[in-house]
Amino acid sequence: MDASIASAMPEWEVAQWFNTEQPIRVADLRGQVVLVHAFQMLCPGCVINAIPQAREVHQLYGRRGVAVIGLHMVFEHHDAMQPHALQAFIHEYGLHFPVGVDAPADNVSGIPRTMQRLGLQGTPTTLLLDRQGRLRMQHFGHVDDLQLGIVLGQLLAEPPAAEAAP
Amino acid sequence: MDASIASAMPEWEVAQWFNTEQPIRVADLRGQVVLVHAFQMLCPGCVINAIPQAREVHQLYGRRGVAVIGLHMVFEHHDAMQPHALQAFIHEYGLHFPVGVDAPADNVSGIPRTMQRLGLQGTPTTLLLDRQGRLRMQHFGHVDDLQLGIVLGQLLAEPPAAEAAP
Amino acid sequence: MDASIASAMPEWEVAQWFNTEQPIRVADLRGQVVLVHAFQMLCPGCVINAIPQAREVHQLYGRRGVAVIGLHMVFEHHDAMQPHALQAFIHEYGLHFPVGVDAPADNVSGIPRTMQRLGLQGTPTTLLLDRQGRLRMQHFGHVDDLQLGIVLGQLLAEPPAAEAAP
Amino acid sequence: MDASIASAMPEWEVAQWFNTEQPIRVADLRGQVVLVHAFQMLCPGCVINAIPQAREVHQLYGRRGVAVIGLHMVFEHHDAMQPHALQAFIHEYGLHFPVGVDAPADNVSGIPRTMQRLGLQGTPTTLLLDRQGRLRMQHFGHVDDLQLGIVLGQLLAEPPAAEAAP
Repeated sequence: MDASIASAMPEWEVAQWFNTEQPIRVADLRGQVVLVHAFQMLCPGCVINAIPQAREVHQLYGRRGVAVIGLHMVFEHHDAMQPHALQAFIHEYGLHFPVGVDAPADNVSGIPRTMQRLGLQGTPTTLLLDRQGRLRMQHFGHVDDLQLGIVLGQLLAEPPAAEAAP
Repeated sequence: MDASIASAMPEWEVAQWFNTEQPIRVADLRGQVVLVHAFQMLCPGCVINAIPQAREVHQLYGRRGVAVIGLHMVFEHHDAMQPHALQAFIHEYGLHFPVGVDAPADNVSGIPRTMQRLGLQGTPTTLLLDRQGRLRMQHFGHVDDLQLGIVLGQLLAEPPAAEAAP
Repeated sequence: MDASIASAMPEWEVAQWFNTEQPIRVADLRGQVVLVHAFQMLCPGCVINAIPQAREVHQLYGRRGVAVIGLHMVFEHHDAMQPHALQAFIHEYGLHFPVGVDAPADNVSGIPRTMQRLGLQGTPTTLLLDRQGRLRMQHFGHVDDLQLGIVLGQLLAEPPAAEAAP
Repeated sequence: MDASIASAMPEWEVAQWFNTEQPIRVADLRGQVVLVHAFQMLCPGCVINAIPQAREVHQLYGRRGVAVIGLHMVFEHHDAMQPHALQAFIHEYGLHFPVGVDAPADNVSGIPRTMQRLGLQGTPTTLLLDRQGRLRMQHFGHVDDLQLGIVLGQLLAEPPAAEAAP
């Protein structure tokens, strides 16, 4: 895990949001560290490891500088993971952070648009953005709590955009 | 947990089966100890604790005298837990034991028929039947592995029907 | 794990007991199922897995037919695991079942006497005796809770000595 | 957990070191973030939670800016936790970071000297020092991995002494 390489975070394309009154764009989160949790509601690794971790980050640091955003990226079993089912999942698992539904594929791949744009390998994937909206970490699979914490702490310690070094 | 009180196990009413070519009736399992795992696919306590436990019992003792049967008892979020979604869930979580869909309610309660008949409080519920098909344990919520094992071991040690004491 | 083969359980040779007013012989436990937990106080696998398991069996089944006996079998770091240190360990870890100190080696091996007699490979080792005092399971390393429970349940279901089949 | 208040870290007083050829003073670690793990070898909370955590920090970040130091602070069962026993413990638990034995009490309290000086409540206690050697966190009991990581990450992001703001 290494947060030393930055690349531009492309905008996500979301068909529907839960847990937020207004749609959220990447740019709206400028100034905060952002943890993006890309998941599927029927993915065991997401449910058992990644979702509890995202929920803990939101509970502990959601009001202390870390925005947590869920992105539901359905690339298999599409019929079983429609937005109405996701809504039930969000309720049952007690998720209180914003969750967006990645826009359905515009081709035959079945891979939704943001997932394509980011080149994600699967779910769960954890992405971290710095206060300037740059992508600093992208990890497919389980992330150890201690390691995630250290990268989050480093990103929290960076100054916001205006003061940042080139 | 106490397996000393026996009552008749009522027949389940199943609308659709997965992981079995033939429908299964309670009477078909006579001679085996039976663990019935009553669950909902979007119930966190089921997914995190009870389903891994049912899977372990099936893997270790499925060929050594314990039949494991899943019953999907949907009493909330009905739209999100239809049989086609359950099929994806069974695939993703690697369940190889027979899973039946409890027949939908015939009244406005939304509680499916076998669930009503058994008077279950919710999911997960674990039921144990002895070799004679009698209900010997019914427990709502998490069952400790050691305690479940001890009751299973006691039931496995009982003689089959013909030799049983009255 | 298989409790189908029985052999005579040799008597243990204990230099000192904790948590019991009277020395305990194998024969004294006749009629009960016995779980013998062979451990060393500085063995990580004992402390992290086996001791909590022995404590749980004692708490749940200690008054329901299962006698739990700890045997401290020191075969390395002898100076660090003397009885006075074991006493502190028993206090700190809240062990309430009888714990015996295996009698020191009578040869240069450093392996204590009961450990030699039983031919144990190391610690932790779990032994199970049936109600007639026969050794029915001997397992070096971690024992899964569910599997331990099933064997315990089977042994609990066996009749005591007088009625037993030959 | 809050790393925003800094106080001077008093020098520790160590009677004997393991895993280091030279005695280590607080000042020697200037420039690194320091995690001090205060423990007793027979304290269950230390063995089950805090020691694995200290070991993980050492493995992952020991060569990336975080010095891990164990301090064995024996305030009870003194006879059972002498340095020769600690040496066996260090070997069995695979600890590779430096471990110092807190100097025995110079009064009747039985509380060793560094522990008195720091006013610790018990074990385990986790202390974090910044790159300038200031005490930034002192926590008695279990520290959540994610929270520990975030504070470590923040301290790692701070500049070393010379450049630091007043």
